[in-house]
Amino acid sequence: MSPLLLSFILEKHVTNNQKHDWDTLWVNANLATMARAGSYEIIKNGAVGIKGGKISWVGAMDALPETHTGEVRDAKHAWLTPGLIDCHTHLVYAGNRAEEFALRLQGKSYAEIAKSGGGILSTVRATRAATEEELLALSEKRLRSFLNEGVTTIEIKSGYGLDTASEMKMLRVARKLQELHPVTVRTTFLGAHTMPPEFSDKDAYIDMICNEMLPTITKAKLADAVDGFCESIAFSPAQITKLFDAAKKHGLAIKLHAEQLTDQGGAALASKYNALSADHLEYISEAGVKAMAKSGTVAVLLPGAFYTLRETRKPPVQLFRTHNVAMAIASDSNPGTSPVCSLLLMINMGCVLFGMTPEEALCAVTRNAAKALGIDDTVGTLEVGKVADMALWDIAHPVDLAYNFGYNPCIGVINRGKFRTMKA
Amino acid sequence: MSPLLLSFILEKHVTNNQKHDWDTLWVNANLATMARAGSYEIIKNGAVGIKGGKISWVGAMDALPETHTGEVRDAKHAWLTPGLIDCHTHLVYAGNRAEEFALRLQGKSYAEIAKSGGGILSTVRATRAATEEELLALSEKRLRSFLNEGVTTIEIKSGYGLDTASEMKMLRVARKLQELHPVTVRTTFLGAHTMPPEFSDKDAYIDMICNEMLPTITKAKLADAVDGFCESIAFSPAQITKLFDAAKKHGLAIKLHAEQLTDQGGAALASKYNALSADHLEYISEAGVKAMAKSGTVAVLLPGAFYTLRETRKPPVQLFRTHNVAMAIASDSNPGTSPVCSLLLMINMGCVLFGMTPEEALCAVTRNAAKALGIDDTVGTLEVGKVADMALWDIAHPVDLAYNFGYNPCIGVINRGKFRTMKA
Repeated sequence: MSPLLLSFILEKHVTNNQKHDWDTLWVNANLATMARAGSYEIIKNGAVGIKGGKISWVGAMDALPETHTGEVRDAKHAWLTPGLIDCHTHLVYAGNRAEEFALRLQGKSYAEIAKSGGGILSTVRATRAATEEELLALSEKRLRSFLNEGVTTIEIKSGYGLDTASEMKMLRVARKLQELHPVTVRTTFLGAHTMPPEFSDKDAYIDMICNEMLPTITKAKLADAVDGFCESIAFSPAQITKLFDAAKKHGLAIKLHAEQLTDQGGAALASKYNALSADHLEYISEAGVKAMAKSGTVAVLLPGAFYTLRETRKPPVQLFRTHNVAMAIASDSNPGTSPVCSLLLMINMGCVLFGMTPEEALCAVTRNAAKALGIDDTVGTLEVGKVADMALWDIAHPVDLAYNFGYNPCIGVINRGKFRTMKA
Repeated sequence: MSPLLLSFILEKHVTNNQKHDWDTLWVNANLATMARAGSYEIIKNGAVGIKGGKISWVGAMDALPETHTGEVRDAKHAWLTPGLIDCHTHLVYAGNRAEEFALRLQGKSYAEIAKSGGGILSTVRATRAATEEELLALSEKRLRSFLNEGVTTIEIKSGYGLDTASEMKMLRVARKLQELHPVTVRTTFLGAHTMPPEFSDKDAYIDMICNEMLPTITKAKLADAVDGFCESIAFSPAQITKLFDAAKKHGLAIKLHAEQLTDQGGAALASKYNALSADHLEYISEAGVKAMAKSGTVAVLLPGAFYTLRETRKPPVQLFRTHNVAMAIASDSNPGTSPVCSLLLMINMGCVLFGMTPEEALCAVTRNAAKALGIDDTVGTLEVGKVADMALWDIAHPVDLAYNFGYNPCIGVINRGKFRTMKA
């Protein structure tokens, strides 16, 4: 060892020793820190020090200071990754569309199903009718499934209420989930999801959203962002523009369901407003991708809906790579088009169905998902200063998280530094 | 109530009362008994009596005799179904093909992967090198994933040993899994899976299977059935015929991997030997389907491999319906083409990818899967006389088992009458 390197290490030790009063130190862990875009950034045989719920040291065991205080936890060569982040869900709802699923497989058309009371409006009816307690209990079951698989942050949208009171009820339940469970919840107001049954004029409904719902919900601090569904069967770019202007006025971050079934130019519109993310994107054009690249808008890909709807047109993964648009993957957990409660399965589907690499797919549910929620300064990677949200995995390599499916290797989760073991 | 009906009920009570010394009685359960082909055969608000590990009473709560002895367990309106049966797995293996999965997604060809030491022979090398204890530990992790989702019977094939000692090692591990865990294991000898690296002549290897491996394995009572891979890239119909003749001589049941990539007439060949099942079947002809109908051979469909390989040609579900061929669904759990450990997910994929109805799909992992293993006289339905293997679900209707995916609503499993709760 060179004298210079030695003196550097000694110096580092001295410096380190002064602040190493960790609450917890994880040792003998293999780390996928995700600290650089598009890369696992692996540290074999590493350690993570935690202080006050935040990561205060990350590195190789070899580089660990000799003296430190606090509880030592042995990972026994399991892998630590950032806690997983599901950045697009509709987790809070009542009702069940299983019967509709069965009818479709028996050959019934969407029109017949809608006529017999199915479709999204059946979820709206059930969600409006449910009490806050009922909604909470239903949502908790789904949330637990995600948490058991290493999820530490989840975004939850409203959008099955479609009136002020019901939208607020959904958002309160979302906030309550964070109070009651070891998870960070980011809420998104999605009043512009579909038309409520009592409205016939889309512009009138958008006006109501902008003039009544949005101000009330903002005042109650129930939403972290605003989202809309820009699509031929939903709202037009002009209507979404109105929505975004109102969101901007209220200082809320912007997201958009865009280019799922047709190219409406939604992603470019969202980018113009510096949206955090545009989501779905099967039909996005190269111009749309370029616009997203310019604004740093994240492409949120939703393989669960693609799979359930038996879509054939994939989002243009190669274009996102070419133009350096960050890709996230999310579950889109919802009762109609993606009744899934596993983000791990979405990692696999991102690879199998969309052709993402396992490394891109893990990035897509950690650092890029954090970016899609505008919280990449606090979560999404294992780096000093970040919140100590981590998942502990019984795997041979992070590739396994994409390769296996229908299999949960999560052996524990660390939320804001606090460890809980999985007992499955 | 008519006097006749009343007297019938009274008579039944009297008869019933004489034998109702149940060990356990499950009450307030909704039942999907699967007691008739193609149907849930639902009993809302039902009960199941268990005696000596077998089902001794099934019916509505209303019809329950007034007096009975034994422990009473309240299902609290959860659903009971037959325990799930996975009738086609390669659960026992060592090694991991995650790196190969990643290479494929990075654009590497199969030839390049094989050249770099990947492919099925990498699993053969790892499985041969593993001790019995190592193989057992690896297999137990995968098994637990299935058991947590209500599986009570699982078939396990050899086929990564490809020499007598290694094939026997795999089969002993499979038997050991039944000893150590609450599950019934059916073993299948699949020496004719692929060519071992030390052989170059397929006929010579088939001769070795028939003259050495099969007699030794039969003598050791390690296999319940014999299986082969009839495919352009594996063994020819003539070679499989030799294998089947030997299997017949040794009194073993027959199964076949057939028509996965091309139509070799394998299903018809298997049917000629009254095979329990022909498996995969994406490329089966109508003549093949008719042959299966005649012999009562079950069509085992494997959506996990179809999904992982991004196949586009589906098995002809409508032809199986038309010709009354029973359809089963299995996981095909294996490290190369279906690294999955969830039979529930396969139910969903059977519907989404193959267009089966949820009712067909549940049949396919209960009564029809039992038939594919030749054990439909003892398991697969909730009927008097059957083994008391059941799964308890927190669902609103059995359709939910197909509709949700990446979600496990199993709250408990009953194996041979013995209950264990799931703690997830």
